[in-house]
Amino acid sequence: MSKIKTPIVILNFKTYLESCGDSALNLAKALESVQEETDIKMVACPQACDIYRIKNETFIDVLSQHIDAVSPGSHTGSTLFEGVLAAGIDGSLINHSEKRLTLADIQAVNQQLLDNDLISCICTNNVETSVAAASFNPDIVAIEPPELIGSGISVSQAEPEIVEGTVDKVKAINKNVKVLCGAGISTGDDMAQALELGAEGVLLASGIVKADNPKDALLDLVSKI
Amino acid sequence: MSKIKTPIVILNFKTYLESCGDSALNLAKALESVQEETDIKMVACPQACDIYRIKNETFIDVLSQHIDAVSPGSHTGSTLFEGVLAAGIDGSLINHSEKRLTLADIQAVNQQLLDNDLISCICTNNVETSVAAASFNPDIVAIEPPELIGSGISVSQAEPEIVEGTVDKVKAINKNVKVLCGAGISTGDDMAQALELGAEGVLLASGIVKADNPKDALLDLVSKI
Amino acid sequence: MSKIKTPIVILNFKTYLESCGDSALNLAKALESVQEETDIKMVACPQACDIYRIKNETFIDVLSQHIDAVSPGSHTGSTLFEGVLAAGIDGSLINHSEKRLTLADIQAVNQQLLDNDLISCICTNNVETSVAAASFNPDIVAIEPPELIGSGISVSQAEPEIVEGTVDKVKAINKNVKVLCGAGISTGDDMAQALELGAEGVLLASGIVKADNPKDALLDLVSKI
Amino acid sequence: MSKIKTPIVILNFKTYLESCGDSALNLAKALESVQEETDIKMVACPQACDIYRIKNETFIDVLSQHIDAVSPGSHTGSTLFEGVLAAGIDGSLINHSEKRLTLADIQAVNQQLLDNDLISCICTNNVETSVAAASFNPDIVAIEPPELIGSGISVSQAEPEIVEGTVDKVKAINKNVKVLCGAGISTGDDMAQALELGAEGVLLASGIVKADNPKDALLDLVSKI
Repeated sequence: MSKIKTPIVILNFKTYLESCGDSALNLAKALESVQEETDIKMVACPQACDIYRIKNETFIDVLSQHIDAVSPGSHTGSTLFEGVLAAGIDGSLINHSEKRLTLADIQAVNQQLLDNDLISCICTNNVETSVAAASFNPDIVAIEPPELIGSGISVSQAEPEIVEGTVDKVKAINKNVKVLCGAGISTGDDMAQALELGAEGVLLASGIVKADNPKDALLDLVSKI
Repeated sequence: MSKIKTPIVILNFKTYLESCGDSALNLAKALESVQEETDIKMVACPQACDIYRIKNETFIDVLSQHIDAVSPGSHTGSTLFEGVLAAGIDGSLINHSEKRLTLADIQAVNQQLLDNDLISCICTNNVETSVAAASFNPDIVAIEPPELIGSGISVSQAEPEIVEGTVDKVKAINKNVKVLCGAGISTGDDMAQALELGAEGVLLASGIVKADNPKDALLDLVSKI
Repeated sequence: MSKIKTPIVILNFKTYLESCGDSALNLAKALESVQEETDIKMVACPQACDIYRIKNETFIDVLSQHIDAVSPGSHTGSTLFEGVLAAGIDGSLINHSEKRLTLADIQAVNQQLLDNDLISCICTNNVETSVAAASFNPDIVAIEPPELIGSGISVSQAEPEIVEGTVDKVKAINKNVKVLCGAGISTGDDMAQALELGAEGVLLASGIVKADNPKDALLDLVSKI
Repeated sequence: MSKIKTPIVILNFKTYLESCGDSALNLAKALESVQEETDIKMVACPQACDIYRIKNETFIDVLSQHIDAVSPGSHTGSTLFEGVLAAGIDGSLINHSEKRLTLADIQAVNQQLLDNDLISCICTNNVETSVAAASFNPDIVAIEPPELIGSGISVSQAEPEIVEGTVDKVKAINKNVKVLCGAGISTGDDMAQALELGAEGVLLASGIVKADNPKDALLDLVSKI
């Protein structure tokens, strides 16, 4: 039995002006609202400073954008597992393309999340690194081909084989690991095609965060499932 | 006129188990209580995920432990100025010894804080880097001699000349920059001697955060002023 | 057919005073001499600035200590693959514990070495990361349990299971990947026991580099094979 | 009396294909030849792996592109001062825009170079950081406005005030510190104008390194002085 209901939409708030403070809360409420209306699992990845408030004011699951592989102690300015856990996280992204970790740190943070029965989502850049990440038995591997990040190009059209290849090879290692498309997803068609290629969800950001109406953009995203 | 009332006690919560979530809030309340009782300025530096809650539930001033020198955008996992500002910060530490920044980033983050009339506290490791930091006209330079960090040795006994030298040279550049002792301060005597050497406050951490009774430890710290 | 003759001794020169300039050349000559006398494969990992000279004045194989995952271009101060290749390297360490790389960079540098038929030696810290590294099909995985690095404790006595476990799991992925012990090896007995546990060689440093007579120390190291 | 003869041309070889191995040597010989013909000081900044060879086969002064602020010891993959010193350096760049250092590390490496009577050239990005760098009394501050790096735009036309402002403020701190233009210099006119603005030399890279004939490009660069 998996902790993860699929299909799943994970929204990375990143560090946009449109995802700070009140705006972060509003994004989380849009996710909450769409989850209620569609019964499709929605997850928020806000900045660390917005985790507590979102967990307190919504029912949405929250992942940290990042956790540093440090133990409690003298690590001023780091994102401590125990800190964001106390703030209410349900899990974390690991190794996002904008916050790459060492191999040793990926393994350590992933293990810490699994040991606490929290959601671990490791981001990767190609089939080979997805396979390596899958060997750690995370809940999710989110593949982000660098050439598609922020490109507006649909992964299902540009590189369907990278999604299919990742799904095949990751499932060969551990069929419980879910594969998400982490780039090249903008529309309902993109998401539907990603699922057809074997992905069990998507990790996305600016297309929703910067939309005039994030809720409408989310509804469109899941409209073809 | 300075934004900073002195003498000042800045408490770096770091990433201790004793400074996560509820414990962070309790520490902030101890600072608040001692500030009220003694009329000595107390400032909290919690983890990013605790800023919002502390600002909402106390009246204490809060500094971020760190800000990344990035503009709003695609910087997953970074600590964005606009993010922690929305969470309520009154300023930030810059270049703490556990989160060193490049020269260019120190200048950029310091300027961002000054432009927003927020408190800028640059941490340094010796007289030379204190002088360089002072050339950016921050509100505060906090000198942490590396050999004293976490040593339990009193800076006023071990290296009084580093405090006096820093005060002299920093004030020669800009007399409005306040110099704080950032290591080697544990007791009321330490703090009193630091002020006698010309410092206008202290930046400290584990001695208070890990004390059985942080409020008592704070009261002791300021008892000889 | 493997590029690697085993058993193999890889000597990491690190950045000791005893391994700069003329001393680096002398260490390489000691390796050369012991390789000739014993017919056991010896490999040198000098600082980047000593690669050219050692390749020009000895016949020993040389690995770079590190390669940055950058393409030719504007990367002042980086260690470029094409640069150290022109200097004469036969391969490189990747992800040494003192120079950890991201997962994406490990994969990229490993592939670059394989594509050029050069020796790839990925350093790892435990069984899990060794398995992940092995999925990239490097020539060598060198396991360095952090708790043994520089400890003087013999890996075969303290943690024989970590060597055996790594060998078992790495060989299950790709039997051509060689496993080396990268910590806890000081004496001839240590090396003999490492080989008995399934390792096909050792990666070592200070015990030889800082020995009064590095050649004698190397001869002792391989005396029990 | 200064160690530095001016005007000076420092050529950063960076990590181009055109500056590896034999090509690095040829670039150094072009510098040597132009220095002999024009009596204008030329300095090479090759990759670490090319320092030894260039020092052995030419008479040109050589700066390391970077030095890590580490003491001799266990720092695999780092660029050790004592290592590049044994290879023959006459000094080093510090804090190049592609290899930024912390404030503490800039001060430490600069001091190490001064203590050994070697050339210290700190790279900076604006007037403020130039002033901070100058407080360390390096031989040279090379100002590289980020918006001009690799732009092909002439600094003397686009931002003459940044050069003049840096010269004024740096000289006010220590008149022995030389200011170099580190971006926006391509032609003989650019260099002549930089000197008119108060700069005492230039730090440049691709325009020469990637020229069809680097020697001719260098001769053109100094033709208007």
